[in-house]
Amino acid sequence: MLKRIYQVALGIVVCLGFVACNSNQASSSSTRKDSSAYQIKVPTPPRPAGQKDVLNLTTPKMETVRVGIIGLGMRGHDAVRRLNHVPGAKITALCDIRPEMVERSQKILEKEGLARVDQYTGSEDAWKALCENKNVDLVYIVSDWKHHAPMALYAMQHGKHVAIEVPSALTMEEIWALIDMSEKTRLHCMMLENCVYDYFEITTLNMAQQGLLGEVIHGEGAYIHNLDDFWTYYWNNWRLDYNAKNRGDVYPTHGIGPVCQALNIHRGDKMNYIVSFDTHPFRGKEVYKRVMGKEDPNFQNGDLTISMIKTENGKTIQIQHDVVTPRPYSRMYQLTGTNGFANKYPIQGYLIQPESIAKDEVPDHQNLSAHNFMPEAAKKALMEKYKPRILKDLEARAKEVGGHGGMDFIMDYRLIYCLRNGLPLDMDVYDLAEWCCVAPLSKLSLENGSAPVEIPDFTRGAWKKIKGYKHAFAD
Amino acid sequence: MLKRIYQVALGIVVCLGFVACNSNQASSSSTRKDSSAYQIKVPTPPRPAGQKDVLNLTTPKMETVRVGIIGLGMRGHDAVRRLNHVPGAKITALCDIRPEMVERSQKILEKEGLARVDQYTGSEDAWKALCENKNVDLVYIVSDWKHHAPMALYAMQHGKHVAIEVPSALTMEEIWALIDMSEKTRLHCMMLENCVYDYFEITTLNMAQQGLLGEVIHGEGAYIHNLDDFWTYYWNNWRLDYNAKNRGDVYPTHGIGPVCQALNIHRGDKMNYIVSFDTHPFRGKEVYKRVMGKEDPNFQNGDLTISMIKTENGKTIQIQHDVVTPRPYSRMYQLTGTNGFANKYPIQGYLIQPESIAKDEVPDHQNLSAHNFMPEAAKKALMEKYKPRILKDLEARAKEVGGHGGMDFIMDYRLIYCLRNGLPLDMDVYDLAEWCCVAPLSKLSLENGSAPVEIPDFTRGAWKKIKGYKHAFAD
Repeated sequence: MLKRIYQVALGIVVCLGFVACNSNQASSSSTRKDSSAYQIKVPTPPRPAGQKDVLNLTTPKMETVRVGIIGLGMRGHDAVRRLNHVPGAKITALCDIRPEMVERSQKILEKEGLARVDQYTGSEDAWKALCENKNVDLVYIVSDWKHHAPMALYAMQHGKHVAIEVPSALTMEEIWALIDMSEKTRLHCMMLENCVYDYFEITTLNMAQQGLLGEVIHGEGAYIHNLDDFWTYYWNNWRLDYNAKNRGDVYPTHGIGPVCQALNIHRGDKMNYIVSFDTHPFRGKEVYKRVMGKEDPNFQNGDLTISMIKTENGKTIQIQHDVVTPRPYSRMYQLTGTNGFANKYPIQGYLIQPESIAKDEVPDHQNLSAHNFMPEAAKKALMEKYKPRILKDLEARAKEVGGHGGMDFIMDYRLIYCLRNGLPLDMDVYDLAEWCCVAPLSKLSLENGSAPVEIPDFTRGAWKKIKGYKHAFAD
Repeated sequence: MLKRIYQVALGIVVCLGFVACNSNQASSSSTRKDSSAYQIKVPTPPRPAGQKDVLNLTTPKMETVRVGIIGLGMRGHDAVRRLNHVPGAKITALCDIRPEMVERSQKILEKEGLARVDQYTGSEDAWKALCENKNVDLVYIVSDWKHHAPMALYAMQHGKHVAIEVPSALTMEEIWALIDMSEKTRLHCMMLENCVYDYFEITTLNMAQQGLLGEVIHGEGAYIHNLDDFWTYYWNNWRLDYNAKNRGDVYPTHGIGPVCQALNIHRGDKMNYIVSFDTHPFRGKEVYKRVMGKEDPNFQNGDLTISMIKTENGKTIQIQHDVVTPRPYSRMYQLTGTNGFANKYPIQGYLIQPESIAKDEVPDHQNLSAHNFMPEAAKKALMEKYKPRILKDLEARAKEVGGHGGMDFIMDYRLIYCLRNGLPLDMDVYDLAEWCCVAPLSKLSLENGSAPVEIPDFTRGAWKKIKGYKHAFAD
């Protein structure tokens, strides 16, 4: 508390200092150091005694990973189908509040020639019994957003690894509870962020890791998806209801996930603070009225929310959220480096400083430019050359199995592969924390006139321990 | 001062309030009102007694506009060439510190069969005599950035209208001085922002004005231009030197200008506050070393600077600046509306809600989608249908005369046309102020850890007087 008062006192000095020297702005400070006098501080709960971080957490190898799935709606149903194709994964339990959803998933197993499995349904807390089931190693959570964290906490309490759909946590309290539970139980707690496995993103990540882009200094991501045709598919309209009640970027993880991997967040760099802007809910209110049949004069979520993040190493991230205006689908995905640039939407393209690419490395070399995207043939050759091992191993199979074009299969495959081989997972609970915290912290920034809001170091001091992001392999 | 202390005191309450209620974030405020407790206030000097605003300023018609040009380098030289093609414009004086530059421009006049004109050169303040020249109605200023405002002020003091290259003012003091001088002298003070006249921008503006995009709620603009090949063309390296000394978006007007017109800024809406983020000057320092032959460990300008602005009517603007990393040229130019979306870079495209376009209005109507850019043929038909009067009148001639593809000619033409016909100019001194203030205010935000910074109402209370932006015509 004293510290906070000191910071505000410092704020007063800086404010008055500004007013005083405003008539001579050109002579203001010439150092580049960022002052944090205007920043909203966000408390980091101390790590309980005896508890350690779970960076690079590994658990004993297992031949078969027995999976229990909670939530068999749109997304969970497809997880059942996909997991049957993942070597070493065995679905052993299914749960949904609606019996017909469970039955629909049991039918998939039967169609594959597999036996029906334990099922839990019909009551609000049917999922608890699944978490307690002795034949489950991994609880795979695909429920509505509000149940993600409570289910994951309960599952870890009962000794299960958890994989949770996005966003896995909605508040800072949920985030810290998941971190503490994973650290205490030494169990994996992974968010099912599929977009980090999409072909362009994972190939570009490999280019960045090989240094082709130089130092990556800025990344952009987004979830721009007009949900006009989808709102009614969410059980009880929970998604629109959540947007009506919450200001902020409530769905940030698809946008920020791939960018954070390329920027090595908590593997040598860390996010320091966030500022968010949003528009009024001009169209959001209309959408609400159309879908719900009534008005909500207090509708919260802006039509467009933009958040900016600054990192410890002096880099920046921009994330956008827009699910109501008519725009082409876009996750943006853009990396700016000192030596090159990558952009996914609305067109996939690369610009690499021509002198960094050898003459025989790509066709059309004479047409490389320092000012335009490289020609299509050169791009294809470069993407082939920098195809990451994960794609070399899995691309063909992923396209067969599908799931958002294959990236869902790759995500499931990697999760099961790492568990079977006793390797660290591709995403840990700190990734989950960093990607999910954008929702509550953007809300906090917005409710305070776009003030900068501190982003806690979720590793509590260990963000430099790992040098650079990488995928683990058994051989 | 008392007011400021009150605001900070309020800040303390809010800060402590946050820390206190942080354990229960979900229950925080459900109103959407923006608090400004964390905002840096920027003083608005009171309007001197007897002085009035210059909104919709008109001055007596003139048959011929006699133009004196200061600065005959890259950009000024082309202005001489273009103005010879503008009906009613007559160049009557030329000035540059370097005699050979003046001679080069006199040669253009000779080549057109025109007489040589008064010239001023050789000394640091040669331009003053041009401003005093009785045969000049309009001083057209194309010098380096630092001389823009001082020259304009001196010219207005001597009874001349002024047109000033971008950015026309670098500090808040310069901005207010130009506003006060224009209000006091009742002379036009226009910034030569050419990008508002580019074909896609001005056509899209017309669509927005006709309501095709619904309510325009967000706009993006940028100046992303790798200047690797251009730095040495600036006299005495003034541009790189300026970037070395100044943090912030030092070149915002090409990006923000077209967006502000579409959002009717100070014609029914106004910009309230700005927040900026930047990266460290990772590549900027390398560029400096290469161009200047020495290191500048204190190099200020971030490689990438992003600013966000919130308007009174609940809309948002994003502006980016990047002149050092290798990226494809982009001014972004993007408008998001409740009924449609327009995007210029890297591909020009529109998405309009299909039901808003009549079946016979565009070809390929069956392929309109609420989720993708419209087909090329439909886009072309729509752009033809919404071609604004300015393009109908001038497009062919502009393409012949050229100057950034023609937009420079349209800008010059409109300036002279409005002066000759006694009409308000397309851009007034408040546009200049709003577009230029991004530089000093982004710097202030950055030097205070990305704090929100108030944007003054440069009209001092009159921002609602004009209803919507429009171009004036004599008939």
